[in-house]
Amino acid sequence: MLYLVHMDVHIPDTVPAEQAAEIKAREKAYSQELQRAGVWVHLWRVVGEYANYSVFDVESNDQLHEVLSNLPLFPFMTITVTPLAQHPSAIR
Amino acid sequence: MLYLVHMDVHIPDTVPAEQAAEIKAREKAYSQELQRAGVWVHLWRVVGEYANYSVFDVESNDQLHEVLSNLPLFPFMTITVTPLAQHPSAIR
Amino acid sequence: MLYLVHMDVHIPDTVPAEQAAEIKAREKAYSQELQRAGVWVHLWRVVGEYANYSVFDVESNDQLHEVLSNLPLFPFMTITVTPLAQHPSAIR
Amino acid sequence: MLYLVHMDVHIPDTVPAEQAAEIKAREKAYSQELQRAGVWVHLWRVVGEYANYSVFDVESNDQLHEVLSNLPLFPFMTITVTPLAQHPSAIR
Amino acid sequence: MLYLVHMDVHIPDTVPAEQAAEIKAREKAYSQELQRAGVWVHLWRVVGEYANYSVFDVESNDQLHEVLSNLPLFPFMTITVTPLAQHPSAIR
Amino acid sequence: MLYLVHMDVHIPDTVPAEQAAEIKAREKAYSQELQRAGVWVHLWRVVGEYANYSVFDVESNDQLHEVLSNLPLFPFMTITVTPLAQHPSAIR
Amino acid sequence: MLYLVHMDVHIPDTVPAEQAAEIKAREKAYSQELQRAGVWVHLWRVVGEYANYSVFDVESNDQLHEVLSNLPLFPFMTITVTPLAQHPSAIR
Amino acid sequence: MLYLVHMDVHIPDTVPAEQAAEIKAREKAYSQELQRAGVWVHLWRVVGEYANYSVFDVESNDQLHEVLSNLPLFPFMTITVTPLAQHPSAIR
Amino acid sequence: MLYLVHMDVHIPDTVPAEQAAEIKAREKAYSQELQRAGVWVHLWRVVGEYANYSVFDVESNDQLHEVLSNLPLFPFMTITVTPLAQHPSAIR
Amino acid sequence: MLYLVHMDVHIPDTVPAEQAAEIKAREKAYSQELQRAGVWVHLWRVVGEYANYSVFDVESNDQLHEVLSNLPLFPFMTITVTPLAQHPSAIR
Repeated sequence: MLYLVHMDVHIPDTVPAEQAAEIKAREKAYSQELQRAGVWVHLWRVVGEYANYSVFDVESNDQLHEVLSNLPLFPFMTITVTPLAQHPSAIR
Repeated sequence: MLYLVHMDVHIPDTVPAEQAAEIKAREKAYSQELQRAGVWVHLWRVVGEYANYSVFDVESNDQLHEVLSNLPLFPFMTITVTPLAQHPSAIR
Repeated sequence: MLYLVHMDVHIPDTVPAEQAAEIKAREKAYSQELQRAGVWVHLWRVVGEYANYSVFDVESNDQLHEVLSNLPLFPFMTITVTPLAQHPSAIR
Repeated sequence: MLYLVHMDVHIPDTVPAEQAAEIKAREKAYSQELQRAGVWVHLWRVVGEYANYSVFDVESNDQLHEVLSNLPLFPFMTITVTPLAQHPSAIR
Repeated sequence: MLYLVHMDVHIPDTVPAEQAAEIKAREKAYSQELQRAGVWVHLWRVVGEYANYSVFDVESNDQLHEVLSNLPLFPFMTITVTPLAQHPSAIR
Repeated sequence: MLYLVHMDVHIPDTVPAEQAAEIKAREKAYSQELQRAGVWVHLWRVVGEYANYSVFDVESNDQLHEVLSNLPLFPFMTITVTPLAQHPSAIR
Repeated sequence: MLYLVHMDVHIPDTVPAEQAAEIKAREKAYSQELQRAGVWVHLWRVVGEYANYSVFDVESNDQLHEVLSNLPLFPFMTITVTPLAQHPSAIR
Repeated sequence: MLYLVHMDVHIPDTVPAEQAAEIKAREKAYSQELQRAGVWVHLWRVVGEYANYSVFDVESNDQLHEVLSNLPLFPFMTITVTPLAQHPSAIR
Repeated sequence: MLYLVHMDVHIPDTVPAEQAAEIKAREKAYSQELQRAGVWVHLWRVVGEYANYSVFDVESNDQLHEVLSNLPLFPFMTITVTPLAQHPSAIR
Repeated sequence: MLYLVHMDVHIPDTVPAEQAAEIKAREKAYSQELQRAGVWVHLWRVVGEYANYSVFDVESNDQLHEVLSNLPLFPFMTITVTPLAQHPSAIR
């Protein structure tokens, strides 16, 4: 079951640079683990922004929330979720 | 080069039902041709709306505009285009 | 799996009164059938508006889109879907 | 008398972690007490957000404001209240 | 129990002038009846707009919706309802 | 001459609690003085928000600005002013 | 007493061209009469739009509403009113 | 003196196709004349939309309004004007 | 050449009170100098807000930007500029 | 391939003045290097704002993101990107 997810990142400058770097490193590792597991199926940078559009493939709303709320950057992101369905003109 | 495209369809009821059906049939054929050509790489229905999120893979801004403005439903759609770039954490 | 759905109805006055009445009658019957089936679990009127907030319990995004796009009033509604998850403080 | 309530939580990082944890613990206890009392009748997490949609059943606008303004997280939430009425198609 | 209600009127020009006049006459009569009954406690024109801000005093959300949805101009208005509570600094 | 005024209060947590309490006490006293003087004719709490809707009765725009800009909470409020006029259907 | 007024004109194409011309002629005459009377003290075109920003000098909110609601183009305009006060740095 | 101008075109389907084609032909001729005169210095299509971003070089606000309000498509466009100034980092 | 300018002031409380007072004093002096020079032709307070609407009369976009960016409060203001043109119904 | 880019700068006052000056100096040098390289083809100040509208000429979405995300002011800007295409009425 697919969802389009928009993540907009804003790390306030009260977070020390080292801590920010450590959070981003954990975010990257976690993200790649989810990509390899087939859960985070697309990850695109929005040109000119510290933001991404992603597509997730999960079993349920609960699983998606668990995945997203465990993101190390979760406290610093504005996330918008759009549930997707099969399009009648799609060939796949 | 990838772009996320959001299409929101609104056919006014001044368009006769037969004409609307004919336009939609041409839209579907054109869409599937572009999908088979590898230009329209994803096509998802937004749940609960007469709208879709799509991803296009084209050579240039000009090619994308040509493809979109030739959609039979183009006069009846509000289209928003977001250019996408490679994300540093993406594994592909 | 639960979703909050907001439906805002606007029937243009180009629809003859009889046809509007017939559509609304079919909407009501279809809605009550879905309620009895345990799919449309809550249906509330928004005070002062021709709109409702509803909660649906479905198996998947695809099922929700099928249910919503088959509503007789679907062409006359602006629909917004919010996926819901279990809240850690909820006692049920 | 039912109201749909949307609560969007934002705890600024000037609040120490311990204090935040203590506030959240009180929030949870208070919320569950109200749920058991039949006042806070639904509590759902919005997927991907530190936010919830809730339904309250109270005697009056005044009671609802008293309940909401006593939430331990009240100073850190943006709250929107939508009064609900009986829907003519609802079977309950 | 008080509610602030904003009503924004837009009668499309497909409604014949005579019919519009008749609807407005019925609206005025109904409004004055509700004012005399102590239900519609304030009615103010917004300067420069075909709109009003009103205060209603009703027993319940259901009563407010019944009153508003029976307004002859209801199909031609965008209505927003804000529930009000006792303010701790109010002297009445 | 009447005006509807919406006041949305946000005291940043850089203001010490004692100072905030002192400002609120002065605000309450000033508000009640204006109410007794017949200038601040209505004061309602917006349910679920640290906000109010109020009606002021003043001689001029200048007087209203003087009254509002002297509110002890003025630096911490977002204020919106809507001028009101006599409504042709109002019975008073 | 001064007010800034923004008027955005939209005459639907269901109004015959002759009737539109006649309404505009009456609007111009009425506007110039009010300018000569010192009520409509400034009238500026917004560059690139069928819109204006104006300043009115009136005795009361009621007088302003009467003036504006009598504009021949009133049914075809979206009007926004901003009450103005003396600025402490103004030299006049 | 430069201005960025955004033009969003919407021709309602009550305009007959022949008349629309004739208006567009006049628009194109007028636009190219202004481009050759050095007034309309840039004209770009917004990808996926019936809209353009343009840059005009004119002597005054009045001249810009005259140019824009004489566009054959003016009655069918939503236009937004942004005045531009020399940027301190620009090398030209 | 006239422009309507809206200035919304927000001085964060990290600016010490003395420094804020000094900035405001310089702002007032600079504003009055520009008013006497016939550049800042109108200056009105928006009722209930720490904001103003102003009209400037300048030679060019560049001059207006120089004037505005030199305001002592410039770093603390959100400014919106609307270019104005002669209105065909204006008597002056 | 052209893109219109809007950059809105906001440097929080937690950044020391010297550091801000150093960042702006690097921004200027980097901007002028890109202008000389024919990548940053237009750079205009928005009148009254600490913002600019720019046009970039790049090979791809990826190149544009690389250029923008390397701007020394990138962490302090809100950037919006609009892809542009050849306009059928443009003479160049």
